[in-house]
Amino acid sequence: MEHLRVVFLGPVASFSHQAATESFDKTSATLVPHASFAEAFASVQQQEADYAVIPFENSTNGSVVQTLDLLADRNGMYNDVKVCGEYYLTVHHCLLVRKGSFPSGWAGYDGSITKLYTHPQAWGQCDTFLSRHFKGVERQDVSSTSKAAEIVAKEPSEPCGAIASRFAAEHHGVDVLHENIEDRADNTTRFLILRNVLSENTAQLVFEQPHPPIPQAQSILATTHKTLISFTIDHSSTGALANALLIFKAHGLNLTSINTRPSLKRAWQYIFFVECGRAPSDENKDAVVKAIRDLREVTEACRDLGTWKDQLSTRTT
Amino acid sequence: MEHLRVVFLGPVASFSHQAATESFDKTSATLVPHASFAEAFASVQQQEADYAVIPFENSTNGSVVQTLDLLADRNGMYNDVKVCGEYYLTVHHCLLVRKGSFPSGWAGYDGSITKLYTHPQAWGQCDTFLSRHFKGVERQDVSSTSKAAEIVAKEPSEPCGAIASRFAAEHHGVDVLHENIEDRADNTTRFLILRNVLSENTAQLVFEQPHPPIPQAQSILATTHKTLISFTIDHSSTGALANALLIFKAHGLNLTSINTRPSLKRAWQYIFFVECGRAPSDENKDAVVKAIRDLREVTEACRDLGTWKDQLSTRTT
Repeated sequence: MEHLRVVFLGPVASFSHQAATESFDKTSATLVPHASFAEAFASVQQQEADYAVIPFENSTNGSVVQTLDLLADRNGMYNDVKVCGEYYLTVHHCLLVRKGSFPSGWAGYDGSITKLYTHPQAWGQCDTFLSRHFKGVERQDVSSTSKAAEIVAKEPSEPCGAIASRFAAEHHGVDVLHENIEDRADNTTRFLILRNVLSENTAQLVFEQPHPPIPQAQSILATTHKTLISFTIDHSSTGALANALLIFKAHGLNLTSINTRPSLKRAWQYIFFVECGRAPSDENKDAVVKAIRDLREVTEACRDLGTWKDQLSTRTT
Repeated sequence: MEHLRVVFLGPVASFSHQAATESFDKTSATLVPHASFAEAFASVQQQEADYAVIPFENSTNGSVVQTLDLLADRNGMYNDVKVCGEYYLTVHHCLLVRKGSFPSGWAGYDGSITKLYTHPQAWGQCDTFLSRHFKGVERQDVSSTSKAAEIVAKEPSEPCGAIASRFAAEHHGVDVLHENIEDRADNTTRFLILRNVLSENTAQLVFEQPHPPIPQAQSILATTHKTLISFTIDHSSTGALANALLIFKAHGLNLTSINTRPSLKRAWQYIFFVECGRAPSDENKDAVVKAIRDLREVTEACRDLGTWKDQLSTRTT
């Protein structure tokens, strides 16, 4: 296989970087940070990148609207971008400190940290630990957890800490003083892996997550493949949405999630994103093609956004 | 009717305040700002307030997740809160300046404003106007458009401007130098009006928007009433979501929108919010009750979140 170019949502040592690192073999892929979601999509569309790894939803916070808006592709800028894989990353936060600054570790921690850095969202995710051990300690918001680790690595004057991943600690060369300080052990982000359908270089790769996600999140359904389809309907037609959703059932596609975003064509018209699963069989091997054909009859527009291997399936099939 | 107490999402002169002012007769209602969405819900649940006016979705930005999360009511804190009305507010931005500071108005504007204040979201909504007339002028983010108007009212030293509503201009006593500076003339926020179902004081009021929303947003469906229902399904059961959605169709309830939020019980389980419309008739007068009864058979939990008069209907019925 040719050497792959994989873009992820930056900065380096972000959770997207970690997901990309764990999804691709280091020896066969170069990972490149992109500052924005739109740049990552554009890279794949223009075939500057083979793959993009972008966050799609978090089990606690819900959908990532920036990703949905780019998948909506209202201006037809990303016609050839499709989903070809997914990766589940359990979000573990650690308390990070400058290398060697607390040689006896957490057991000997003397309470001397005077300032903490992290992304605004992480404070709330580590509330129990912070209330118990860092009540009243000054907090400084920064643009990413990775940035927090970087600041701590470079701050020689005062004892400070960062809340970030072990991955960020390794990247920035800081110590993990305490790990798994998050409130919810099951807080997980699902990333999508995107490719360009015109690229022959990426046509064959099937993504398999090396370490399966946490067991309680696994589906007990027999569906092993997921498909994402978007469509808009004519709201002046009674029953149009119900009719569109019925088509999935008619072709043996099990609806698993539905998201909506404004169409921006008319107020209160939506783009629907329907995710559905199936266990491939001889009967349903053309299910997606047939569903799209039938959807064209009842929708204003619809689009097959890709099929990929379900990483939550129990893999019995 | 008794005097009503209506809470809205603060600060004063916010778009929620404007929606509340336009929804209730000044002589019969006292309007009270609340700092958070949760406080507004709690006020209605505890019957400290008769009504709450909260943003639900914007035609450009989509759903307001804070409102969905409170309607999800995962801990059963707002058992008696239901939707009883809606209000569509078209978002018009104005350029506001201190009273009397530009006596000859926009026609005589000399380019002397050196600093602009507004909420971060408003910059992007007025991009065309700002690029044309205020390129390179310093921009200061503030917590709300209303706050921006307040700052400009109190700033005597330098010529500065605020981007906020005409409502905020009137409230804070500043001049409108230019109105309707927004890019999209149809940017509209839909507010929900909430009441406590146990309150007799609020049982009879039917909300009618005095000025109908912009014509192009109007529905050409005959549905005159909307209902919001939430449910969670057992994802291990194939077809459960499709079966739940079929129930709406079976009872003549036309699906108009679907939203999802994480259930927070299990990763990748969702709470679905289904909004549906109907034109009341003898045949469908019990449709919501029957749909809820049937949904109980195929969902883990479901809840009727209220029925109200559709303000987008053409009102032919």
